[in-house]
Amino acid sequence: MDPQATQPAGARARLGRPRDASRDADILEATIEVLAEQGFDGMTIDMVAARAGAGKATVYRRWPSKADLVIDAVACMKKRDLDPAQLPDTGTLRGDLIALVRAPSAADSDRKMHVMGGILSLMSREPELARTAYAAILQPRIAANRILLERARGRGETRPDIDVDRLAALMPAMSSFRTLAQREPITREFLISLIDDVLLPAAGVVRAVV
Amino acid sequence: MDPQATQPAGARARLGRPRDASRDADILEATIEVLAEQGFDGMTIDMVAARAGAGKATVYRRWPSKADLVIDAVACMKKRDLDPAQLPDTGTLRGDLIALVRAPSAADSDRKMHVMGGILSLMSREPELARTAYAAILQPRIAANRILLERARGRGETRPDIDVDRLAALMPAMSSFRTLAQREPITREFLISLIDDVLLPAAGVVRAVV
Repeated sequence: MDPQATQPAGARARLGRPRDASRDADILEATIEVLAEQGFDGMTIDMVAARAGAGKATVYRRWPSKADLVIDAVACMKKRDLDPAQLPDTGTLRGDLIALVRAPSAADSDRKMHVMGGILSLMSREPELARTAYAAILQPRIAANRILLERARGRGETRPDIDVDRLAALMPAMSSFRTLAQREPITREFLISLIDDVLLPAAGVVRAVV
Repeated sequence: MDPQATQPAGARARLGRPRDASRDADILEATIEVLAEQGFDGMTIDMVAARAGAGKATVYRRWPSKADLVIDAVACMKKRDLDPAQLPDTGTLRGDLIALVRAPSAADSDRKMHVMGGILSLMSREPELARTAYAAILQPRIAANRILLERARGRGETRPDIDVDRLAALMPAMSSFRTLAQREPITREFLISLIDDVLLPAAGVVRAVV
């Protein structure tokens, strides 16, 4: 399977031609797209190469197996995610949470959940990937929620005794459940109803009359 | 182990001796146990037969593949679950919910989640099994929560405008997330903190001072 065994181009790359990092990013992005659509078992390296406009050999040269490619692609999703320094700061918990679920963020959540669905079979065989996927897809969102909740508690907007860990996991948990178990899409309406009907009342935030 | 394994007896069974249904129940129960411990990929028919004290041939005669066996075993879990007519009725929502998470129910939830974890790889290949598992493992719990919430709303114990569907899914969603994504066990403490710190405040139930 290793193209370097037979191909001079592969050998040249080994000998020092700098790898084209932008090519890598395209391939990883294409991997996530194909994964979200086809799932791990349905995905092929051919599909990824075609989507990225790259040669199959280019993909294999860098990632010896489909699992290696997927693990790298999932790990890379994290970098494009929420930057804790750039979280919304609207003055209210509701305002912050609504800002976080604005499109394209809601569409992005739905896509991430499809990626999760697509790698479930692989995750159960590869505990390392399960940890990577959790760290890349769910943890950044939980960490962001934790910051917003602690800030609101600091303002006296929530009950003082809220369980920040549980509440920070609430939306990621209920969103995962909705896609993966209930097989329904994550819409903006769904996310807003989680905020207004579950998270804010659970945090003891008194709703302003609008 | 199994007299039928030595052929002539097996042939007799084929020819019309009624199948021993209690044997089936033991085999399905053993399947769930092995599945919870080993996962689908790690499980073998041999392990199930040994656990049930049955012959491998007996198992294969009834279920041609491991997937068939698992699908039947998961579907059967439902029957042993919550009977909607027998739900606790303590007079308060908290009392009812706490009664539902009493051991052995908490241990049973944890085991069910391990079964879910064990069949994730199979679920992603078999949408039918994913639906069966949801119906067997999660839906009965959601249905029970819905009944308890509606009863509490009827008593005026909750806010009148609670979103029953979202709140009924809250504990199953957060429990699934904890085992499958966060890889932490479902303990009674965890379930009680979900009730007291998330579900009851979200439902607008005023906590009695104890």
